Amino acid sequence: MAESRVDKLREYLDRGDTSGLKEFLRKLHPVDISETFQYLEFEERLSIIKLLDFEMAGSVLSELDLGESNELLSSLEPQFLSDIMEAIPSNEAADLLGEMPEEEAEKTLSLMEKEEAEDVERLLKYPAETAGGIMTPEFLSIGSETTADEAIAVLRSAKDIEMISYVYVVNEGGHLTGVVSLRKLIVSEGKCRLKEIMDRNVISARTDVDQEEVARLVRRYDLRTLPIVDEKGVLVGRVTVDDVMDVIEEEATEDIYRMAGTDDEELSRKSVLNVARLRLPWLLTSLVGGMISAAIMRSFNVTLENVVALVFFVPVIMGMGGNIGMQSSTIVVRGLATGRIELGHVWGVLFREIRTGALMGLICGAVVGIVVRVLQGEVMLGFVVAASMFAAITVAATIGVLMPMGLKTLKIDPAIASGPFVTTANDITGLLIYFFLATSFATYLR
Amino acid sequence: MAESRVDKLREYLDRGDTSGLKEFLRKLHPVDISETFQYLEFEERLSIIKLLDFEMAGSVLSELDLGESNELLSSLEPQFLSDIMEAIPSNEAADLLGEMPEEEAEKTLSLMEKEEAEDVERLLKYPAETAGGIMTPEFLSIGSETTADEAIAVLRSAKDIEMISYVYVVNEGGHLTGVVSLRKLIVSEGKCRLKEIMDRNVISARTDVDQEEVARLVRRYDLRTLPIVDEKGVLVGRVTVDDVMDVIEEEATEDIYRMAGTDDEELSRKSVLNVARLRLPWLLTSLVGGMISAAIMRSFNVTLENVVALVFFVPVIMGMGGNIGMQSSTIVVRGLATGRIELGHVWGVLFREIRTGALMGLICGAVVGIVVRVLQGEVMLGFVVAASMFAAITVAATIGVLMPMGLKTLKIDPAIASGPFVTTANDITGLLIYFFLATSFATYLR
Repeated sequence: MAESRVDKLREYLDRGDTSGLKEFLRKLHPVDISETFQYLEFEERLSIIKLLDFEMAGSVLSELDLGESNELLSSLEPQFLSDIMEAIPSNEAADLLGEMPEEEAEKTLSLMEKEEAEDVERLLKYPAETAGGIMTPEFLSIGSETTADEAIAVLRSAKDIEMISYVYVVNEGGHLTGVVSLRKLIVSEGKCRLKEIMDRNVISARTDVDQEEVARLVRRYDLRTLPIVDEKGVLVGRVTVDDVMDVIEEEATEDIYRMAGTDDEELSRKSVLNVARLRLPWLLTSLVGGMISAAIMRSFNVTLENVVALVFFVPVIMGMGGNIGMQSSTIVVRGLATGRIELGHVWGVLFREIRTGALMGLICGAVVGIVVRVLQGEVMLGFVVAASMFAAITVAATIGVLMPMGLKTLKIDPAIASGPFVTTANDITGLLIYFFLATSFATYLR
Repeated sequence: MAESRVDKLREYLDRGDTSGLKEFLRKLHPVDISETFQYLEFEERLSIIKLLDFEMAGSVLSELDLGESNELLSSLEPQFLSDIMEAIPSNEAADLLGEMPEEEAEKTLSLMEKEEAEDVERLLKYPAETAGGIMTPEFLSIGSETTADEAIAVLRSAKDIEMISYVYVVNEGGHLTGVVSLRKLIVSEGKCRLKEIMDRNVISARTDVDQEEVARLVRRYDLRTLPIVDEKGVLVGRVTVDDVMDVIEEEATEDIYRMAGTDDEELSRKSVLNVARLRLPWLLTSLVGGMISAAIMRSFNVTLENVVALVFFVPVIMGMGGNIGMQSSTIVVRGLATGRIELGHVWGVLFREIRTGALMGLICGAVVGIVVRVLQGEVMLGFVVAASMFAAITVAATIGVLMPMGLKTLKIDPAIASGPFVTTANDITGLLIYFFLATSFATYLR
């Protein structure tokens, strides 16, 4: 799909057929245009952006990845930029301006209409991943004495507010007191006052609430829009469901990348050196863990020299412990993130994971013990390997649950635990268990 | 929050204050009631469900986990059940009925109003994770000659359709031809015909489209509702954004769990044996990999017996290869899922990951080489370990990219690759590289 659009765009550009290109672009959705940009040269992108009307250009820029939009933004005229910023919702304008060098952003803001510029400046003050950082300050608020017909008239005149699903009812101080859905407004008697039809149990969030919590509220109560209030309860904006969908996906992606010891910034970083810098903290933790493993094996050198066959099963014991530990911690990390596991339920989950771990340890231990017995021909070695695997797996499951729960209690993102800490801790405990058992039974091993 | 509600509910139940309890329940949101159920005894849950009106009872049941709702459903009277099913949207009814034993579901259906029962039965035929399986068949469709005022009148009379954001325009055959947002309807002149104000570029999906694709469309185009058509283009239902949010989260959770070699069913499975059965396929793959590692080490036994110190660094080389492999495959798996990486871009991503892998292999190899040189006091061993780590990490990054891409090409979910295949493949290649190098330089090693 994208490829055929790219071909069409190139055709128009090569022919220099500006009016044909304009006509073709008008029929496309902004997201479809932005998608073609990854296949186009910078000069081609720039020509296309300049041909779009302000609103469309702004929407296309908003859809681009950080790196792509940055380059374009710094090549556009300040006047064109300020026109774009005025044409798109303030939160999108704030996002774009936030990416630009401060000086250029200031210049663009100074060229914008005062009211719009103030809206954007206010938004820029909120931290990015909070309700304030993702809200749009455009909303429809009406007094509670207004009738349904009057409210509809207001609605008709407010053409520039997008995606309205609710009318918010406020008192004289601007405090949020109720909500009426668009649908309710339509089906109500025209002379009804809003206070008679509004829902007083409005679910709202403060500007400083984390975006993850915002997403949870919207999902939990199946909302189209969540009103955002300041510390005094005054309505200052709303978060729409399309932004929430992005948050849900972003947060999941962040968790996934963190569990693997990297970050969701990775794909927008261009240089390999930058990517390596993101990943190195975990890798070095893990490297230290590996060196500790080496030191442990070295200290058990006597046992190893006597029974070289012991060494063969180090990878399988460490590997299986690592697997189970990762499974348990993944279950807990994701369960905590989606709310299916709560901190209050620690013991139930722990107990269950330990039992699961023990059961799988028993199965895997038995399998590996029998294989060792048959292939290596040694009963005692088979027993030591099987028992170590059983113990290592059970301990790994325990650590896999306790580590993220502990981090969550300490208010550290448990997703980072699933990677470095759990793996390293399990490698070391697995090795210790194995060599401890091997040394204890050393006299029975060849 | 949930705890205080539970205490309140218990108070009412213990006092036998039915009317007080009813009054208290009326003020709660269904999701808040369902949340308290995990803290309540079965008998308490049952009493509460029976006190709710049909719609509320249905919503509460829909919000519950599979295990919890099953128990309750099978304890309710068929007549009560059929009243509940009639009161809630057909897709929720279908979900609940789908969980019940066939016989009971049939009985409930037979007690329902014919039209509603047919709606539900039709929905039950679609596979669960498709557009048909998550759509609701209640929608508002109107002919294109209708005026805005007439459309609003229709809307006013259709009180039982929830969450309307768009009116769909269809022709005589029921084929979807356009869409008008509720907002557009309100701001338009009352005498306008829908064909004049409707958007003809309707984005829709067929019933057999995967729910992940449905979610992607809704997110991509910031829709509130996606119309669903049959193979002839006839409008048969719509998927609302709240269901899409659930899909986004479910799919992310599924990916995360699959990467760890388990499944998102895990949390709803009660018995440890069932959980173990889910996880065993991966663990056994991994176990076989571990046994192959053991066999490899055994075949290099001569080298090992001569230079026992070689063994100390097996865990760190395998572990680091495993880490990088997991990082690369995570980047690719999630990138493919969110659409940030496309199959067409394989080479760019591969090249980048290999370079990142090589760089990190160089850093980690240098660190580990120096440590070995200093602690173990052996230059050649340090060199062999460092070179092996460099090679193992670079290969691991390559496998980490190619494996999920290959699976995706074969139309297998790449998420399952990040776990078993990548880890096992990397363990084995890492070990082979290390011992191959060690044997080649055996004469220089003590």
